[in-house]
This record gives sequence, C-alpha cells and structure tokens, in this order.
Amino acid sequence: MNTTTLPVLLSNEELADLHKEIGRPSLMGNTIAKLQAELEQYMALPMDVPGHGEAGGYEHNKHKQNYQYINLAGRLFLITKDERYAEYAGKLLAMYADKYLTFDFHIQRNTNPPGRLFHQILNEHMWLMYASLGYSCISAWLSQAQRSHIVERLFKPMLEMFTEKYGHDFDRIHNHGIWAVAAVGICGIAIGERRYLEISVFGHNGDGETGGFLAQISKLFAPSGYYMEGPYYHRFAIRPLAVFAEVLHRHMPELDIYNYKDQVIKQTTQALLATAYPNGLFPALNDASKTMAITDMGVVVAVSMYFKRYGFDKNLLGMAQIQNQVWMHPCGQALSEACDAEATIDPPFWPSVELNEGPDGTCGAQGFLRMQAKDKDICQLSMNYGQHGMDHGHFDTLGIAFYNRGQEVLREYGFARWVNVEPKFGGRYLDENKSYARQTINHNSVTVDEGCQNQFDIKRADSVHGKPHFFMGEGTELQAMSAFADEHYPGMGMQRTVMMLKSDMLESPLLIDLYRLTSEKPHQYDYSHQYQGQIIRTDFEYKTNTELHPLGDNYGYQHLWSLARGEAGSNALISWLQGNSYYTWLGTSSSADNEVIFTQTGANDPQFNLRYENSFILRTTGKDLLFASALETHGYFNEAVEASVNARGKLHQIKVLAHSETGSVVAIEGEGIRFTVMVSNQPNVTDTTEHRIIINDKTYSWKGFLAVEQETK
Amino acid sequence: MNTTTLPVLLSNEELADLHKEIGRPSLMGNTIAKLQAELEQYMALPMDVPGHGEAGGYEHNKHKQNYQYINLAGRLFLITKDERYAEYAGKLLAMYADKYLTFDFHIQRNTNPPGRLFHQILNEHMWLMYASLGYSCISAWLSQAQRSHIVERLFKPMLEMFTEKYGHDFDRIHNHGIWAVAAVGICGIAIGERRYLEISVFGHNGDGETGGFLAQISKLFAPSGYYMEGPYYHRFAIRPLAVFAEVLHRHMPELDIYNYKDQVIKQTTQALLATAYPNGLFPALNDASKTMAITDMGVVVAVSMYFKRYGFDKNLLGMAQIQNQVWMHPCGQALSEACDAEATIDPPFWPSVELNEGPDGTCGAQGFLRMQAKDKDICQLSMNYGQHGMDHGHFDTLGIAFYNRGQEVLREYGFARWVNVEPKFGGRYLDENKSYARQTINHNSVTVDEGCQNQFDIKRADSVHGKPHFFMGEGTELQAMSAFADEHYPGMGMQRTVMMLKSDMLESPLLIDLYRLTSEKPHQYDYSHQYQGQIIRTDFEYKTNTELHPLGDNYGYQHLWSLARGEAGSNALISWLQGNSYYTWLGTSSSADNEVIFTQTGANDPQFNLRYENSFILRTTGKDLLFASALETHGYFNEAVEASVNARGKLHQIKVLAHSETGSVVAIEGEGIRFTVMVSNQPNVTDTTEHRIIINDKTYSWKGFLAVEQETK
Repeated sequence: MNTTTLPVLLSNEELADLHKEIGRPSLMGNTIAKLQAELEQYMALPMDVPGHGEAGGYEHNKHKQNYQYINLAGRLFLITKDERYAEYAGKLLAMYADKYLTFDFHIQRNTNPPGRLFHQILNEHMWLMYASLGYSCISAWLSQAQRSHIVERLFKPMLEMFTEKYGHDFDRIHNHGIWAVAAVGICGIAIGERRYLEISVFGHNGDGETGGFLAQISKLFAPSGYYMEGPYYHRFAIRPLAVFAEVLHRHMPELDIYNYKDQVIKQTTQALLATAYPNGLFPALNDASKTMAITDMGVVVAVSMYFKRYGFDKNLLGMAQIQNQVWMHPCGQALSEACDAEATIDPPFWPSVELNEGPDGTCGAQGFLRMQAKDKDICQLSMNYGQHGMDHGHFDTLGIAFYNRGQEVLREYGFARWVNVEPKFGGRYLDENKSYARQTINHNSVTVDEGCQNQFDIKRADSVHGKPHFFMGEGTELQAMSAFADEHYPGMGMQRTVMMLKSDMLESPLLIDLYRLTSEKPHQYDYSHQYQGQIIRTDFEYKTNTELHPLGDNYGYQHLWSLARGEAGSNALISWLQGNSYYTWLGTSSSADNEVIFTQTGANDPQFNLRYENSFILRTTGKDLLFASALETHGYFNEAVEASVNARGKLHQIKVLAHSETGSVVAIEGEGIRFTVMVSNQPNVTDTTEHRIIINDKTYSWKGFLAVEQETK
Repeated sequence: MNTTTLPVLLSNEELADLHKEIGRPSLMGNTIAKLQAELEQYMALPMDVPGHGEAGGYEHNKHKQNYQYINLAGRLFLITKDERYAEYAGKLLAMYADKYLTFDFHIQRNTNPPGRLFHQILNEHMWLMYASLGYSCISAWLSQAQRSHIVERLFKPMLEMFTEKYGHDFDRIHNHGIWAVAAVGICGIAIGERRYLEISVFGHNGDGETGGFLAQISKLFAPSGYYMEGPYYHRFAIRPLAVFAEVLHRHMPELDIYNYKDQVIKQTTQALLATAYPNGLFPALNDASKTMAITDMGVVVAVSMYFKRYGFDKNLLGMAQIQNQVWMHPCGQALSEACDAEATIDPPFWPSVELNEGPDGTCGAQGFLRMQAKDKDICQLSMNYGQHGMDHGHFDTLGIAFYNRGQEVLREYGFARWVNVEPKFGGRYLDENKSYARQTINHNSVTVDEGCQNQFDIKRADSVHGKPHFFMGEGTELQAMSAFADEHYPGMGMQRTVMMLKSDMLESPLLIDLYRLTSEKPHQYDYSHQYQGQIIRTDFEYKTNTELHPLGDNYGYQHLWSLARGEAGSNALISWLQGNSYYTWLGTSSSADNEVIFTQTGANDPQFNLRYENSFILRTTGKDLLFASALETHGYFNEAVEASVNARGKLHQIKVLAHSETGSVVAIEGEGIRFTVMVSNQPNVTDTTEHRIIINDKTYSWKGFLAVEQETK
C-alpha cells in the first residue's frame, strides 16, 4: 500500500516563507505571479493525454507541457493553498495512470531506447522527475485510492522500465544519465520506496563508481568543471544535477553532497556560468543553438541553488536580473532577497578563466577572457584549445569567438538544426550539420588546404587536444592567451595567441590575433572570420562576382558562395557595421601574397536548411607563416535617429615584423598611434624567459610570454 | 538695440507646472530626467564650434548636436532653474556669434543652397529654429551685451541669408519650406523682430497664398492629410509644422491656426499617425528607412500637440507608451497626465483608413486596413493606389505591405542608403536606390515582362495614379480594399483586391489577395513577395541552383540571384518561419503553368550596398490573368526554449474558379474548411450591384463589392 509522503523539496516552514512572497514586487513575487498566470492559462485548455505522435509534434509537446504543469500545479498548490491546483495535478496524473500501460512502446529511432510516451526514454525520465515532484506536493491531499492508482499504474511501471527493462542503460555515464538517476531517485522518495534513491545515488552495484549520481558527477566533468560537449549540453545536464543535489541535501544529508569531491557541484555550475556572454547567451560552442541562454530553466535552478549553497556573488545577482526570475524554491528566495537588498545590480562580469579539460585536466582547455571598456561595456573573447567534444564536437581547435557591445562579433554558427520544428526533418540534426556546421571553415580559425581538422574523423579528433601555452587573465589593460594544436592537420604545427588590449587612444579594447603555422611542406591557408552586418569599406579593391560558384567542393566549402575576391597586398582593412557598432579588421600575413574572399552560406543547400551568414577569408600560401590581425571596435550608428559617429576608426595598418621559433613581432599603426606586439613562441616559456629578435638592426627584446609597446605621436 | 524677449513657447505658469514634474515617475518626469541626463553628459564634453567638414562627418554632427543642446539647455534652465544650463547655452551661442561670419559658404552639392555651417540650408534652418527657441529661454538671463552679440553677429545674418540671399527659395512650397518659415518666424519672435514672423506666415508677398506657412500647409497635403512622399518625409515635415503651429497659437491667436482650413493641422497629423504599424514603426513607403518610427522627435512633438489641441484619443496614449516620452512642453504634460490617469494602456489600434491623394483628393489613395486577431494581435495591411511620390517615389502602385505579430511580414525594402554613414557615399542615396530599391520587382506586386511600372520614368509616373474601387474598413471579421491601375504598364489593366478575413477555424486573420491583369497581348507576369526568415516547407519540388546567376539584366532583376526554381502546378504552398511565427502562403493563377522562383538580393552590387533580402516570385504568362493567394499566420516557435507549435497550419489549397469583367471567384481549402471568395471587377460597382457567375453549372451570385462564404466540415 502507498502511504502519504511529504513534498520532496519543501518543508512547511519554507512554504510559509514562500507564501509571504505572493503579490510582492520581488523577483520571487514576480516569479510566483508569472508561473501562476501560466498555470491558469494552461488549466483553461482541455485536458489531454494523447497517444503516440511525431517527434516534436502535438503529442510530444502535450506530454512535455503536462509534466511541467503537474509539477507547477503541485508546488503552487502548496504555496498559494489553492486546492484547484491540487485537483488539477491529481486529475492529470490519474489520466496518465489510466492510460500509461495501454500505450505501447514507441519504435526506436536512435540509440536512446524508446518509452511509452516519448520516442526517447530521456524525455520519459524528464517526465517522471517533474511528475514525481508534483505528486509529492499533493500526495497528502490525495485519497489513498488515488495515490495507489497513480503509484501502481504509472510510477512503478516507469521505475521498473528504467531500472530493469533498460537497467543496462541506467548506469551509463552520460549527460542523459543524470536525468535517469534524478528521475528514479526523486520518484523513489515521492512514493516512499527508498531503494530507488539508493540505486540512483550509488548505481546498481551500490559502489558509487560504476553508476549512479555520484559516479556521474565524478566522471562527467573535468577538474575545472567544464563539460566537454559544451555549454548547450552542459546546461541541459545541470537541471537534474541541481535539482537532485538539493534533493540529496535534504534526503541524504550524510552525503554532504554540496561538498562532495571538492565541491564538484559548485565547480561545474560555476564553469557553466562562466562561459556565458554578458547578455546571458551561451556561446554556441560545438553543436548548440544560438539562442540558448541562462534564462533556460535548468540554469535558473542552478543559479538559485548556487547562490543559496555556495554564498553571495554579485555576478549571480546580475544573472538573476537577466533571468528575470528565480527558482520557485527556498534557494530562489534567498537570491531574490539578496537582489532586493541591492540598490543597483550590474550585469554579470565573471573573471577571466581557463577551464581545463579531460579527466585530470590535462587535455587542453577552453579559455575565456573578459575585459571592460572605458564605458564599462564588457568584451569577451573565448578560444577552444581543449578537447573535441565527441559526437557533438566541432572541428575548430584554436577557433575563437568574440563578443562586445551586447553582440557576438566574431561569430559561431552553432548547429544546423531547427529544434522541434517538425517539418524540418522532425527537428533533428540536419545533414548540413555535418557537411557545414561542424567543419573548420565555418569557424573563426585557419583551414589548411581546404580540408578539415582531423579530416572530420571524430575518433581521431577525440584522441587529440590543444595544448595551453600561456593564459594571462588578470589584467585590466592587457589580457592574453596562447595555445598550440600540433596534431590537428598532418605535419602542421599551429599556435594561436589572442589578446585584448586597452588603450586611451581607442574606444574599446583592441582584439589582437597572431595565428602561426609551421610546416615543412607548402600549404594553402584560409584564415576565416564569420561576421554579421554590412560591409562599410575596405582599403583594397575587390571584385564582386557576376555569377556565384561554391568556393570548393568539400569540407564545408561546398556551402559557401564566393561573393567577391580581392588582392589584399600587404595589409587588408575590412570594416563593417553590426547593429549599432562599427568594426574595423586589419589583417595580414607574413606572406606578400594575400587574397581576401567574401563568402555567404547557402550553396548546395537543397532544402534551404542553412541560415544565411557571411564570412571573409584571408587566403595565402606558405610553409611557416604568421597571420596577424587586429579588430577595432568603434563608433555608433543608430538608423532610427539617423546618427552616425566615428564610422572610420583609428587604425589603418598591421605588419608582421618577424616570426620565428623564438617569437613573433607585429606592429599595428593608426592615427597618432603605434603598437608593437611581441609574443613568445617557445612552448616552455615562463614569465622570466628572455626573448630577443633582431630585425633590420632593430632589436626587439622582452621577458616572459608577451609584451606590448605603445607609442603615441 | 536688442531687448529682452520672453520664451517663445512657455509661460511662467506653465513653467511652474513643469517644474513640479521633476522627479515624478510620470512620462513627463521621466522625459525631464532623461533629457537632463543627456544634457549633462553633453556638457561634460569639450565645447566646440567646428568649421567645414564632410556631410555626415564630425563637423556636421557637432553643429547638429550643438543646436539640440542649446535648445534643451535653455528649456531645462527654465524648468529646473539651474543657471549652469543658461550659462552653457549662452556660451555656445556666443561662440557661434564669434565665428559665424568668419565661415565661408559651403560649396553647393545639390539643389539645396549651401549655408555657412552646413552643406544645405535645410540644416541651417533646423539650426536656427532650435537655437532661437533656446535663446528665447535665456534672453532675459543674458546681459544686454551678450544679447547684442548673438543677435547681430549670428541671428540677423542668418535671417538675412534665408530671406534675402536665398529669398527666392523662401517661398517655395516644399516640405523643406516648412523648416524655413518656422525657423525665420521663431527667430523673429525670439529677437523681437515681428516682421520676420509676418513673412513666415504670409510669405514675402503677404498674401498667404504664394509663400509662407499658411500656403505651405494648405498646399502640401491632400484633403486626407496624406503627404505624397510618404510617412518618412512626412514625419520630417511634421516637426516644424507642430512646433510652429504651437508658436502661432500663442503669438498670432487671431489666426486660430488649429482650426485653419478645416483643421488641416489635425488632419495631416492624424494621417501621419494612422500609417504607423502597431509597434510604432512607419511602413517604409517610397524612399524611407526601415527603422523610422513614432519615436522620432517630430512625432513626439506632434502626438503631444495633437492630444492637447484636439482632445483625448486612447490611441495617442498608446503611442506615448511606445515613445516612452512626451514633448517637454505643456502639451506633453497634458498627455503625460492623461496616461497617468489610465490603469492600463493598450497598444494603438487606429481605425482602418483610406487616405486620398492629390490637391482635391482625386488622385487615388493609400489604404490601411487594421484588424485584431482573437488574441488581440493587430494585423495591418496597406496598399498603394495613389500617387507616385515624386523624386522619392517607388514604382509600386498596387503594391502591398502586411504586418502582424509585431513584425512586417510582406515587407518593404525601403531606400538603398546608409543615412549619415559617411564612408557609404557620404550617407547619400546610393545608385542601387534607383537600380533596385525603387523598382517594381522589389515590391509585393506584379511585374510585367520584367520591366518597371511607367518604365521608371518619374515624370510619367507622377502624371498617373491608382483608382480606388472599393474600401471596406469597418468590419471586425472581414475588411477589404480594391483598386485599379490601368496606366502603369502600356496596354495593361490591373486590379488588386486584398482582404483580411477572420475565422474561428484560424488563429489569425487570413490575408487574401486577388490580383487581376488584363491585356490583349500575351505577357510574362511575376507576382512577387518580399519575405524574411527560413523556408520551412513547400508542396512542390524545387531545385536549388548549383551556381547563381542574376534573374535578369535590368529593372532590378539584375540585383536578384535566382536561388531555386520549381514548377508549382496548379497550387504553390510556401511556408516560412519569421521570428516566433510561422506563415504559410498559398498561391496560384488562372494559368495552369506556374513557376516559383526563390531569390536573394546581392547580384551586381559591387560595393556591398544592398541588404540581403529574400523573395519568392510566382511566374506565369498570359493575357487576362488572375493571381490568387492567401497567407495564413499560424503557430509559434521559440528557439531559446525549444518550443514549436502548429508548424504546419490549416490551409492547403487555393483555386481560381472564375475571373471575368463581372467578377472573380476563388476557393481556399484546408483541414475541415473551405472559403469561397467572390469579388466584383466592375468599376462602377455599388453595394447593391448584383453579380452572377456560372461555372460548371454552379452559380455564384452576390450583391455588392464582395462576398465570402465559409463552409466547415
């Protein structure tokens, strides 16, 4: 028989506190009001528990909404004391209990086993976690008969399916695995069957090593907390992780889960948050959508949990402002109160951080530099010099992304997929994800011989990684990071050093990029940048094509229309307008022979699956070669008020003075200003290493990783 | 000698009222706070009165900002009583007085004569109007010597230039002329020289007919108030018009300016406001930017003036919400108080309106239909069946634009110009404005034989106009408008009937479009729609091109890449995703042979001057022909939360059943629904005219302009 249980995540005292927030203009008050309005709106629709349907179709959406509202209705019943909500959740659960075992299993479509409600049990795990949480809120309100019906005909069959029928899958270490254990563990508590909690935490073997939550959180993340598939997948795993952590904090206090394994939960949550752009969007590293943000439900839970369990950080307050809600839970209430206590809350400005990769942190890293401009605008520069990211990995080691003035400037494309848009291949990954989105040329990187890193061989790519050279993330005037990738093209050495440099002469930190290639054989090198907006001017002649052809026939090139080409000579200036800001890029290489190619996506796209995006490529040939470039952010344009200021910028030339195994020396010149940038190319450099390069009787010498000299006239 | 004058636009009592608004959370309080913050920010910069420079360059911008802040500083001095503002305005005016006569005249660049500060005296008029208003606020605060200096060395030379040196231009009836008379009249009051006010109102001849404000406002607008160049130019003229009207209300009460000529000021202001989309953007009719909105300074003044002088209208409150400010003047205060008094303010929902064109309203019209969906979303459909619009006119008679769910769906391109972006041809109109932006094919219209209406001959185009057929703008379930254009292609008759139809079976009003062409000779007809977003599906096969060629070689076709083509058979379904909404278009013609061409702009664009935009074209050939189409708005997509609902829509087919001189009959079919649309093609139809068409023994009969029958299954 099924006894009454208590709400899994809420005590009576906590509920009383939450009840007081109703109607208040706090973040929590607003959250309650918003969720209550959404629930009321949903309750006004006819109730429906549909049968099988297309992935992303009505049925899928309905089941998804149903579990969300069972969960919400349960919690809002306890917070508002409105019994209509308990009745609604109970009725919907009973409808599922009536029908669940009458539904057959779906046909298996991918490696994820099928459920009775969804094509993938992943979704069924999500269903169970939320429905269980909702159930636990109304369990005491339901009659014994109602409880029995739901537990016997719905929850127990689900638990059996997950732990027995698909038992082999339950212990797999995988981001989906966190959903499985959280769902099973939480449902176990909700129905008073603690053995399910035990296997969820320690795995079927009970050792905490081969399966279960403890094994998952110990093995899925690097020591830095980074998740190798990138933020898009990380934020999906963080939801059950944060929820289940809070559950274990309450139901297995002996685990001391928040301090488990040197606070791995703190570490991985912080690592995720630290990747986000200042506007809350996640950089679309690897397969990812361009719009995934910290407003995602899981990150809302994680930010509230992190604040409550790991203490005050003003960046969390900044994030809560962007989220414009908190987790409707005591954790969220703590954050809401902290926000209330501040007179002003700035946007989040996380410190620069190098997030190592690999089980012991030795498989490279993801670097994130952040610097504020004079006007407080936050610039963010990221570089991938870590692992490949398995099946969702993009072949873009040493690729960078750059953000400032509220927008991504050197851009990621993200995945080629229209998620949940059923007429677009069922919302699944499109062929163009492989043929374009994941290719090297679709990144802010260098493509060698029109190929792809690791020849698009995932296994090979997973076996290598970037090598950190140096990381200087502390400065307010100069920050830099440098890394090698010597195993990504056969016989090629690659080193990229990127930095942000603040100068009184410039409006915004200057992005400087030195990309060095070494090889014994000659190659074609394509240095590419993905930009968005309108070309404003160049300092070289180019010719637009009167008919368009794809730029190549493989490795993503087949999807690029070659729009225009021009000989860039020793220096190429390309300036464009994106949103309200102008950008001027100066690029060159150590070769005298540089060509610029302007491209647009869309070639060989028979179903219009790609988005239209633009790039420019600086193409040259050579053996050992240095690409040097600088990106100046300047001016302001506002079409609506017809204002344009400083459309031209200050800088006009960049020169490679030298590059060798010792170091690279580059000069950047503009109106009344000259920067000399000296970077160490020695793998074992320390901050005391002396460097000396003599060019035309002029000696450039510096100590440590790099030096920048600024002369003003 | 120059005596003290009073503020031109403000009494002491009014100032006391405005003073009370400081710090209040009203629209006026917020406006004062915002403008004061802007002024403080500007005052922190070094003061500068530069010499000549490039159009759109630093000097141009600086002079522009200077006059704006002289005006603001004067007014804010009176409102806040902070003498620093008076001092600032006085100092800046004195700097101009020092330098003005040392500046030579600019070199003339276009038909507008040059000034000493700006390339065009238009800008110098604007300078004078604002500087005079600012001066009048501090006149009493300045010393006699300061006043003399400013008046003798700055204002009087300017007045002489405008009324004597360029006296021939002063009386010209032109939208720029309103700036001239407002500037001269206001400056005359500000320096106590009333004769300048007299000529500004009545013209040099003093007759009020051949020049001056009264002549301008009597002659520039159609009886409906519409300004033939379109809203973009209209909103520019409305600024001096509204300001000067208020000045005359105070300084020449005997004119009773607000009732002058059957309230022409009310009429023309309302006509402008009634063109705006529900989000406040103006449709880019003729040459216009895509971002010009009611937030423009002139419209802010106009909305406040209109509210104060012509009484309460809740749509003005809705507009003030979008503007998020009011005119910092007693007129604005009245509006601000009205907003405060309302509990909730809805977005503006102006009634449907047909704005006639031409001096006596007989040169066609611009039609604007508006209808609310079930969820209150406002749909707006406009059609141009009026005049050409002179040098800024687009060759798009019978062209339409459609807006709903917060976005323009069937889109205008606007002008080809990067306003004030100096490196883009000085911010002036680009060659592509003629070669593409103004061409027929760049509109939601039909292009005959790959040409342009009136062969792109402006004189010819100005001599003809559309002919209204019927306008039904009152219904909440069905609205329609219909017009002819028989002089725009040689030997061609054209009639377009567009309607919005609300049905319980559909989420949003259905846009139905019947475009009829008649000719004795065979032609090629291209029915085109400019859309934005991602193609989701079609119901016909198409082939994307593996290399791209321009679609044609003239009349705008040279700028279109032909992306893909497909045989559409008897019905073409094209569905796309724009923003958060899906759209499904069903199109056909009375020909059996229909081809669809997908295009993108960008061909033959050697300077990257064009924006990238997409269109699809339904191409067919024939003599007499009817295009019939329907646009269904449906579903919801939100990538950030990965939600997609109803991506497919309900409708799947459209058929032309008949079209003749009597009428056109079209059927639209979908899941469980069928509409039969019957439209009169008889020029002299009235609402009692009987129509009867027999097709395959079935008789379609209806009375009046049109009828729609709906059958549900």
